[in-house]
Formats: sequence, C-alpha cells, structure tokens
Amino acid sequence: MTDSDRRWLNAAALLAERGRPLSRPNPAVGCVLVKDGRVVGRGWTQPGGRPHAEAMALAAAGAAARGASAYVTLEPCAHQSERGPCCARLLREAGVARVVVGCGDPDPRTAGDGVAMLREAGIAVVEAECAASRASLAGYLMRAESGRPFVTLKLALSIDGCIATASGESQWITGAEARAHTHLERARHDAILVGGGTLRTDRPRLDVRLPGLGTRSPERWVLSRSPAPDGWHRLSDPADLSPLASAQYLFVEGGAQTAAAFLAADHVDRLLVYCAPIVIGGGRPGIADIGLGALAGAHGRWKFADRRMLGADTLEVYARTR
Amino acid sequence: MTDSDRRWLNAAALLAERGRPLSRPNPAVGCVLVKDGRVVGRGWTQPGGRPHAEAMALAAAGAAARGASAYVTLEPCAHQSERGPCCARLLREAGVARVVVGCGDPDPRTAGDGVAMLREAGIAVVEAECAASRASLAGYLMRAESGRPFVTLKLALSIDGCIATASGESQWITGAEARAHTHLERARHDAILVGGGTLRTDRPRLDVRLPGLGTRSPERWVLSRSPAPDGWHRLSDPADLSPLASAQYLFVEGGAQTAAAFLAADHVDRLLVYCAPIVIGGGRPGIADIGLGALAGAHGRWKFADRRMLGADTLEVYARTR
Ligand SMILES: NC(=O)c1ccc[n+]([C@@H]2O[C@H](COP(=O)([O-])OP(=O)(O)OC[C@H]3O[C@@H](n4cnc5c(N)ncnc54)[C@H](OP(=O)(O)O)[C@@H]3O)[C@@H](O)[C@H]2O)c1
Ligand SMILES: NC(=O)c1ccc[n+]([C@@H]2O[C@H](COP(=O)([O-])OP(=O)(O)OC[C@H]3O[C@@H](n4cnc5c(N)ncnc54)[C@H](OP(=O)(O)O)[C@@H]3O)[C@@H](O)[C@H]2O)c1
Repeated sequence: MTDSDRRWLNAAALLAERGRPLSRPNPAVGCVLVKDGRVVGRGWTQPGGRPHAEAMALAAAGAAARGASAYVTLEPCAHQSERGPCCARLLREAGVARVVVGCGDPDPRTAGDGVAMLREAGIAVVEAECAASRASLAGYLMRAESGRPFVTLKLALSIDGCIATASGESQWITGAEARAHTHLERARHDAILVGGGTLRTDRPRLDVRLPGLGTRSPERWVLSRSPAPDGWHRLSDPADLSPLASAQYLFVEGGAQTAAAFLAADHVDRLLVYCAPIVIGGGRPGIADIGLGALAGAHGRWKFADRRMLGADTLEVYARTR
Repeated sequence: MTDSDRRWLNAAALLAERGRPLSRPNPAVGCVLVKDGRVVGRGWTQPGGRPHAEAMALAAAGAAARGASAYVTLEPCAHQSERGPCCARLLREAGVARVVVGCGDPDPRTAGDGVAMLREAGIAVVEAECAASRASLAGYLMRAESGRPFVTLKLALSIDGCIATASGESQWITGAEARAHTHLERARHDAILVGGGTLRTDRPRLDVRLPGLGTRSPERWVLSRSPAPDGWHRLSDPADLSPLASAQYLFVEGGAQTAAAFLAADHVDRLLVYCAPIVIGGGRPGIADIGLGALAGAHGRWKFADRRMLGADTLEVYARTR
C-alpha cells in the first residue's frame, strides 16, 4: 500500500459518490483502472445497481485493462447473478495484474470469497483499510452490520440554537445557498423523514428542487402515531427502523421532537447543522428533551468532522463516535 | 498609502493590543518607527496611560528617529498635560519625516489638531482609514462616540444552543482550552458582568486565572435589581450603561436573561460563542426572550467575523453590523 495507492483509492471513493443513491439496493462502488500511472478506465455502480463499477471500468478500458491495477472501494463480488456476471471473474478475464480493495464486503455471498478468487487466479491483492472507501459505503455497511440505514439529522439553527421564533415562524432561518445545499443532501438519500408536527405545520414537499436532480427525490416518510397521508410512508417508532427496509441512507429534517426521538434512540450517525448568523432569543429550541441525565453523559459522543461557509451561513458536520 | 504602509500600520495595531486594558483611561495605542525598511523603535501605551506609544517608540529609537516614518494607530495628541508632553511635538523634535495615522482622535483636545501641528512643522502626514487600527481602538471609539463601553457577550453553548442541562448543570460544557481562552478575553477587558441569577447559582470568581495575568482581573459587576455583594459593582439597567463610566471594554458572561437584556437594549457589539461538540436536548437555552417579532427582524444584524478551534470546541466570533 503506497501513497499513490491511497490516492487512487480516494479517487475511486469520489467516483462512488456518483452512484449514490440510485444504485440501491446495491452499494455505490467506485473503480479506477490504472496502468503506467495513467487512468485507463473508471466506473461506478449504475442506477438500479447494475452494471457494477468494475464492469463499467473494464468496458471503458477494453484491451488496456491487461496488466493494469484496479482500485475498487469494495471487495469485488464473487457471486454470479442472473442480473450480471461476477466481478472477480471479470477482473481475472481482463488480465488485471493487481487489485487494491478499500473495504471488505460483508455480504455473505462474497465476504472474502472475492479476494480469494482473485488470489487463486494469481492476481496480487491488497486489502486496504481505507477510510474514504468506508465513508462512501456508510449506508451499505450500516445496513449490513446493524440492519438499519445510516441516519443524518439536519438542523437549520440560529446562533442560539432555535429552529423557529416563539410564534413558530421558521421560514427562513438560513439563506438560499444553505437551502440549496440541503436539496443536494436530499438527492444523496434514499428516504427523507419529518415529524408529524412539521408535516402539519409546514406541509413540506421534501423533493429535490435542483436542476437535473428532480428524479433523485427520496421517498417521503413521516414519524407519527397516526396514519400517513397519501404519498407518504409512516414510521411509528424511531427505535425500530425496520419499516425503512430498503433504505441505505435516511435524512431526518426535524422538527425538535423528531430530532430528540432519533437522538434518544441513538439512531443518528451524522449531524448536519446549518447555522445562520442571527439571534432569535427565546425561540423554539432545535432539539427537545433527549433524556440526558448528567452533563458528563453528553461528552464524547460527537466529533467535529467538517465545516464550510454557505453564503452567510455555516454548515457544521459532526459524526457520531462509536 | 502603500501596501507596506498598510502592513506597518497593522503591525502597530498588533502592538497596541499589549496596552489593553491597563492603558485606561487612555486608549491603547501602538507605534512603529521605520527607517530604510527597518524598525528603529516600537511602543505602546503603558499602564495607567503614560508614556504614550509615540514617546516609548521615540525613546527606543533615539537618534535613529531622525528621518524615520512613524506609524501610529491613533492621531498623535496635540495637548500638553501635567502627566507628559504632547506627542505631535515629540515627533517634530525627534525629526521624524513622515507620520501615517490609522485613525483620527475624537478627543476634542486633539481632533485634527495633532495632524495640523505635524503638517505645520513640515512633516508629511497620511490619514489612513485603517480597519485594524479602528478595531484595536473599539472601546475608546465607542466611549467617545456613544458614551458607553464596547460590549462583548460570551456564551458557552452546546450544538443545540444550551448553556445548561434542564436541571441547571453547566460545568463544564466547553473544555480546558476554551475556558483558558475565556480567561484571556477577561484579561482584555476593564469590567466583567454576570446576571444576578448566575451570581447566586455559580458564585463565579470572574478573575483571570492565567499565569502572570492575575493583575489584569477586571472589575466585577452584577446585573441585578437588588444591592450587590461586597467586592461587586451593580448595574441595574442594561439600557443605561452610565455606571460603567470608566470602562472601555465590558465582558458580559451571561446567563440567558442577562444576555437577552443586553441584546434587547442593542448593547452588544461582539458575540463570542464557544460551541462544544455535545447535544444537550431540552436544556436551558443560552439566550432568553429578546422581544423579536418577525423572523425577518433577526437578519442582517450580525456578521461572521472569526472562527478557531479550541481543543474539541469551536470559537465563533460575530460582530454587530451598524
Ligand atoms: N429549522 C429547521 O431545521 C426545522 C426543520 C423542521 C421543522 N422545523 C420547525 O419545527 C416545528 C415542528 O417541530 P415539533 O418538535 O413541534 O414537531 P415534529 O418533531 O416535527 O413532530 C412531532 C410529532 O412527531 C411524532 N413523534 C415524535 N416523537 C415520536 C415518537 N417517539 N414516536 C412516534 N411519533 C413521534 C408525533 O407525531 P403525531 O402527532 O403525528 O403522532 C409528534 O407529534 C415547526 O415549527 C417547524 O417549522 C424547523
Ligand atoms: N454556559 C454559559 O456560558 C453560562 C454563562 C453564565 C451562566 N450560565 C448558566 O445560566 C444560568 C443562569 O441564567 P439565568 O438566565 O437564570 O440568570 P442570569 O441572566 O444570570 O440572571 C438573571 C438575573 O439578572 C438580573 N436581570 C436580568 N435582566 C435584568 C434587567 N433587564 N434589569 C435588571 N436586572 C436584570 C436579575 O437579577 P436579580 O434577580 O438579582 O434582580 C435576574 O434575576 C445558570 O444555570 C448558569 O450556570 C451559563
């Protein structure tokens, strides 16, 4: 595993992002084929999950794949399916010399068999522990390991942590850039959820209103104890995410009770806080009671991960430490 | 005004910071003497206000001051006082060739007379509009222009804007680095204030507990409707800061009602938010009701000014737009 291996794997992880979220039910994988320091093929999982990233990259490379190194974020699959060939075999048949794998595949149909097939064929395999690959597979890995989607909680807050004025006015706290960024995040998710309160108050459409990305609008869910309206799915208990069986990525957009319910169930993996440079003062807090006892219990659960300015607002990203 | 003039003025503004806050009742001024591109003297206002920055820099330079350029954040004083000579005369007598002034002095005893005296003596004077100089004189200028100190409101908040858990536990939200930084900020202020609630709950000492800076502990004030305890001064109305007659810089450390009262009076110039990577959820909000009506009224009042990491916490600085 060299520095340049690391860079090519990171490039593959960036490509994988293109597959998200339309690759479902398959993981969004990225693949780069490199020969003599040059890229000869690139691929990522296509909508619906096929072709796989490796198949796409090999098709692009053609004969140039012979002797190349393949960088792939997830272990190549070892199982033939009626929907397409097995990637470990494709890589062997194309004459690839070396495969660098970002992350092992927990799918029991592969789980090490992909790597074993490649090695049996005399191909050098490096099993890297690549953070960028794991991050790009967060939803797939969460589903495989915990049987639930990877959950992002979004909050648009004032400096003093309010999501609305005392009278309930919440449009708008953040500016146009931050709201556009939220739409981009929606486009990266399979499902989006708000609480019954927000559904009744704001009647949100929760679609992706960005040019060319309208088709990426996620499934709409409401957290509620009563039936969901037409066009909406219902979740009745944030501690049980099994109704969201097909989703790898769930985007929770509030309000305060819903945020608190997901946090209390420890079902939030990533916090996305859009902070506007305004003071509301005595407004509605962004997160209701989560059942915290002593203050010490609040520490050590979140790690600062990223930050950027969006117009006058700041986006802060925190990751759950586990 | 050249780029290098601008850089030397900025250097003078950094030096001025050394005079703060002990220069009171005088402004904390910085001065750099430059000849042939090299610094020949530096000075800043000394504790108690004398010697002035120019006098200190000229004493350091000695004969080298002849023909030098003087960079000074505030217009040199034009008035002789029993406590020391007038700086415009000192600069003339030392044979300084050129003076670059960062900001005019609103003191009626100078107010343009300093610049005029220098020009009469044949010295080239540049009157710069230097943002760094103005910023370093914020307290002095606020007092001259509005008759009150420059007010900084400090808040230590969780991600969701709480200053304490629901049961009132607030020690500690932020980590050691952020708390040390707060002590450094205390050392830059003439007076420090908390509300009666915080005084009764936390019994804070409000002193500077940093090695070597203990003597910089500011005067202690409490916002309260009842008499202040021994060793404390009392402010009874945040809309009337006249009791703080000698302070150029006031540091308000909360709690929530006090923060709100100062904000409602529009007597906060700078917000210092130490944000810890924790979620409290249903805790005590950092800022109580400020009488905001429509959400639109909250926008445009604060401008993001600075940010830094302090251990795991983030310090965000916002400046009031006026
Ligand atoms: N700034 C922002 O980012 C943002 C985002 C969203 C919303 N908001 C604002 O937030 C406000 C709404 O917040 P809110 O806290 O009142 O409402 P909410 O969280 O949107 O919805 C509360 C509802 O969610 C359901 N719910 C909550 N916990 C549950 C649990 N453990 N099990 C089952 N169902 C549960 C219940 O729905 P049922 O009553 O249907 O059973 C409950 O009434 C609105 O003013 C909205 O504009 C702001
Ligand atoms: N995390 C942080 O940065 C931080 C900082 C400070 C405090 N805290 C926490 O905040 C809590 C205290 O906050 P709080 O809001 O309850 O109390 P507070 O703001 O500290 O004090 C409230 C008191 O201030 C006085 N006051 C407020 N507005 C006034 C006005 N307009 N005119 C005259 N007097 C006025 C009154 O004092 P009298 O009753 O004496 O008349 C009032 O009872 C404590 O839990 C403390 O630990 C946290």
